Amino acid sequence: MIKALYPGSFDPITNGHIDIIQRASTLCNEVLVTVLPNLSKSPLFSLEERVKMIETVTEEFPNVFVTTYSGLLVNFANEQNAQVIIKGLRAVSDFEYEFQMALMNRKLNTNVETIFLMTQSKNSFLSSSLVKEVARLEGCIKGLVPGPVEEALIKKFQHK
Amino acid sequence: MIKALYPGSFDPITNGHIDIIQRASTLCNEVLVTVLPNLSKSPLFSLEERVKMIETVTEEFPNVFVTTYSGLLVNFANEQNAQVIIKGLRAVSDFEYEFQMALMNRKLNTNVETIFLMTQSKNSFLSSSLVKEVARLEGCIKGLVPGPVEEALIKKFQHK
Amino acid sequence: MIKALYPGSFDPITNGHIDIIQRASTLCNEVLVTVLPNLSKSPLFSLEERVKMIETVTEEFPNVFVTTYSGLLVNFANEQNAQVIIKGLRAVSDFEYEFQMALMNRKLNTNVETIFLMTQSKNSFLSSSLVKEVARLEGCIKGLVPGPVEEALIKKFQHK
Amino acid sequence: MIKALYPGSFDPITNGHIDIIQRASTLCNEVLVTVLPNLSKSPLFSLEERVKMIETVTEEFPNVFVTTYSGLLVNFANEQNAQVIIKGLRAVSDFEYEFQMALMNRKLNTNVETIFLMTQSKNSFLSSSLVKEVARLEGCIKGLVPGPVEEALIKKFQHK
Amino acid sequence: MIKALYPGSFDPITNGHIDIIQRASTLCNEVLVTVLPNLSKSPLFSLEERVKMIETVTEEFPNVFVTTYSGLLVNFANEQNAQVIIKGLRAVSDFEYEFQMALMNRKLNTNVETIFLMTQSKNSFLSSSLVKEVARLEGCIKGLVPGPVEEALIKKFQHK
Amino acid sequence: MIKALYPGSFDPITNGHIDIIQRASTLCNEVLVTVLPNLSKSPLFSLEERVKMIETVTEEFPNVFVTTYSGLLVNFANEQNAQVIIKGLRAVSDFEYEFQMALMNRKLNTNVETIFLMTQSKNSFLSSSLVKEVARLEGCIKGLVPGPVEEALIKKFQHK
Repeated sequence: MIKALYPGSFDPITNGHIDIIQRASTLCNEVLVTVLPNLSKSPLFSLEERVKMIETVTEEFPNVFVTTYSGLLVNFANEQNAQVIIKGLRAVSDFEYEFQMALMNRKLNTNVETIFLMTQSKNSFLSSSLVKEVARLEGCIKGLVPGPVEEALIKKFQHK
Repeated sequence: MIKALYPGSFDPITNGHIDIIQRASTLCNEVLVTVLPNLSKSPLFSLEERVKMIETVTEEFPNVFVTTYSGLLVNFANEQNAQVIIKGLRAVSDFEYEFQMALMNRKLNTNVETIFLMTQSKNSFLSSSLVKEVARLEGCIKGLVPGPVEEALIKKFQHK
Repeated sequence: MIKALYPGSFDPITNGHIDIIQRASTLCNEVLVTVLPNLSKSPLFSLEERVKMIETVTEEFPNVFVTTYSGLLVNFANEQNAQVIIKGLRAVSDFEYEFQMALMNRKLNTNVETIFLMTQSKNSFLSSSLVKEVARLEGCIKGLVPGPVEEALIKKFQHK
Repeated sequence: MIKALYPGSFDPITNGHIDIIQRASTLCNEVLVTVLPNLSKSPLFSLEERVKMIETVTEEFPNVFVTTYSGLLVNFANEQNAQVIIKGLRAVSDFEYEFQMALMNRKLNTNVETIFLMTQSKNSFLSSSLVKEVARLEGCIKGLVPGPVEEALIKKFQHK
Repeated sequence: MIKALYPGSFDPITNGHIDIIQRASTLCNEVLVTVLPNLSKSPLFSLEERVKMIETVTEEFPNVFVTTYSGLLVNFANEQNAQVIIKGLRAVSDFEYEFQMALMNRKLNTNVETIFLMTQSKNSFLSSSLVKEVARLEGCIKGLVPGPVEEALIKKFQHK
Repeated sequence: MIKALYPGSFDPITNGHIDIIQRASTLCNEVLVTVLPNLSKSPLFSLEERVKMIETVTEEFPNVFVTTYSGLLVNFANEQNAQVIIKGLRAVSDFEYEFQMALMNRKLNTNVETIFLMTQSKNSFLSSSLVKEVARLEGCIKGLVPGPVEEALIKKFQHK
């Protein structure tokens, strides 16, 4: 019985995230998508909006759940009896940062293992921030994010 | 007949940029240096100052023109009938970011091709932000930027 | 009038190479695919076989030609009045090697410019050697190489 | 019920490999260490020697088994009903190669997932080939490989 | 007689920094730890607090001294008759940035040499910002920073 | 009193190596250029030829000496009372390999420190193997290697 956290700021969730969630859901008994506040950047969507969007676009996966957490991730893993943290890798720059985080998390709690899945090549250029930038400039984001997220992004930038 | 955009924030233009412009101008019929506002960082020079400096230091190239644009770059390429976006590569970290941008731009418009030129090795450590940092600390920037840009940088930091 | 060399060992040509050739053929007036002997590895296909395969799979591009060369590439560019060498980039490790080659070529001949095109993301994991390895182990290579190359690979490994 | 392959040439197995095996064995129901012949390099230890050494040094893990395979890895995963291929990552250069392999394997068989575990930082400089080089030069390899492997390496190079 | 600067923002000093300082102190006659203000990020500790902490945790090294500087580093090297700037390398991303800085510094003053020491593998995931993040979330930072820094970090975040 | 080894295969020595030797010779009391046999590649020049060439082109540096060694480098450092191993870094791929070697060497002997110097940007594309390849194809190698090495390379390839 493997329970996994899939942490991120998901501002907003992209098709790259969903690809990882889908594959994690076939490997693990339960995947808990864990939305982190992201203190360093001011988010476009509120925590509540992000959770709601993820719930909507992952409702087809019965073993995927969504929550938020603002403390130390390995403590949350402990509380939740999650043995695994899932991360998606796209590029070398991801790799170095994630390596550093994985080693720190192992130092903080040796019972929690970080495992990495490779993003599908067609999503390798996708990031939440790039999608936001394209949406802000009114470019077409179809195929980059799920339908409901596309609508939310368009609405968001109309109000700006 | 190849028309190319060479986009960047050029805050300010360095000898590395001019190296790329010169080589692009021998390959393409027309090169349109496209100054982007750069929302994420507060610029040292205004858009107008940047355009003027680039016009001054590229006036020897008859097929190089300067403009500004604040929307989606591939749309501007379309409006201008430019088939090509030129980017200069210096280092691995450039490469990953530019790869991501090139793939996104191809997704947004398959008619616009991004081509990459390598920066001359002697300019590989040059960046606008590093030049600004050296100028701010009153280090010698001769040889890193053209004469008029050197003067403008010195004046800028005297007034600060 | 831009004439470009597209050098490589093409042992064999893959869909990744064809993607680069197609895009180069829309940017340049003439693209000369230049098959290099590749001294360091013993090739699977002879130079003649490689040239023939490339001719077959690029015959739809009227401005693409195929040849072989075994000397210094920049000298061949000079002989051919080619101003440009085209290279495809897939990954960081490509980048460093190609950067080194481009700087050396510029040192040897400043009139020849190396330009880089990004491989489509769906081809980013494709390489001739990986395709050969999969074919050797009788894995399916459909979609990785053009039909005639697929057949040639299968035949080659049946005879081994 | 997750069954995983952990493929490699293991010539010989190091403490870095054992670190990955141990962690994989707590995440998966069964881990099948799969020794590949490694055609491109001439191995120091025969396939049989390598299998025997791995069996000896992993006997404390009841759900870890050892085998050899010389065909297409994803076919072997299918035969074995293994859903997962485990790989250890140490450095950026590993990452690019493994990324390429993982994407190719997914193309060949979408039912097999490659997951990556990070090597412990204290093992990040360990590789079978570096260990062999040190042993060949009669340097101390204690702490880099398990005791039986250390003995086998010393014996091997005495006979050379 | 080699005198070295070891520059950084040290906000706060970690065991990784101390590892570098210790090794530099055995190679050089004098090591001057040079605390830079770090304009781009708002620091957690004041310059004075940082200097005091470093003095406390390096007092066992008789040839290590601490100071602050806010101008051009190579000018400070000149003033201090330091021939060498010491930097620690952990990862590829460090490498590229430090390479750029080293080349710029050589351009500004060819008499000052930058030398690089590798961080011990067990510290490769350590950075001041990651340590601060863990401390802020009340994770255990024992073993990552010296005792006095651990206390200072805990106190700092209690007052927040 | 710092004594340094500068190891390499130097097949042949390039201007990039000489740049590192010159700078090492101003930092260290003695630099011992240590020519390694390089088992994995068949060398172009014999050990004796390589030593002689290095002696010729470094004779202006009174504190630089040349020798050969075929055992474990850290043992040689001990025998020679050398506290330091000098390595030149050019690119990310160098960095990862050298990092691995430096950590292994520290494991084998904690008294020997590896220090890294950055290659001048104008030499960043220079490698012995690339120079040999250009010389073999009769390209101009002036400015890449010292005069005597240029002559030796030309003679070598005339006889082939």
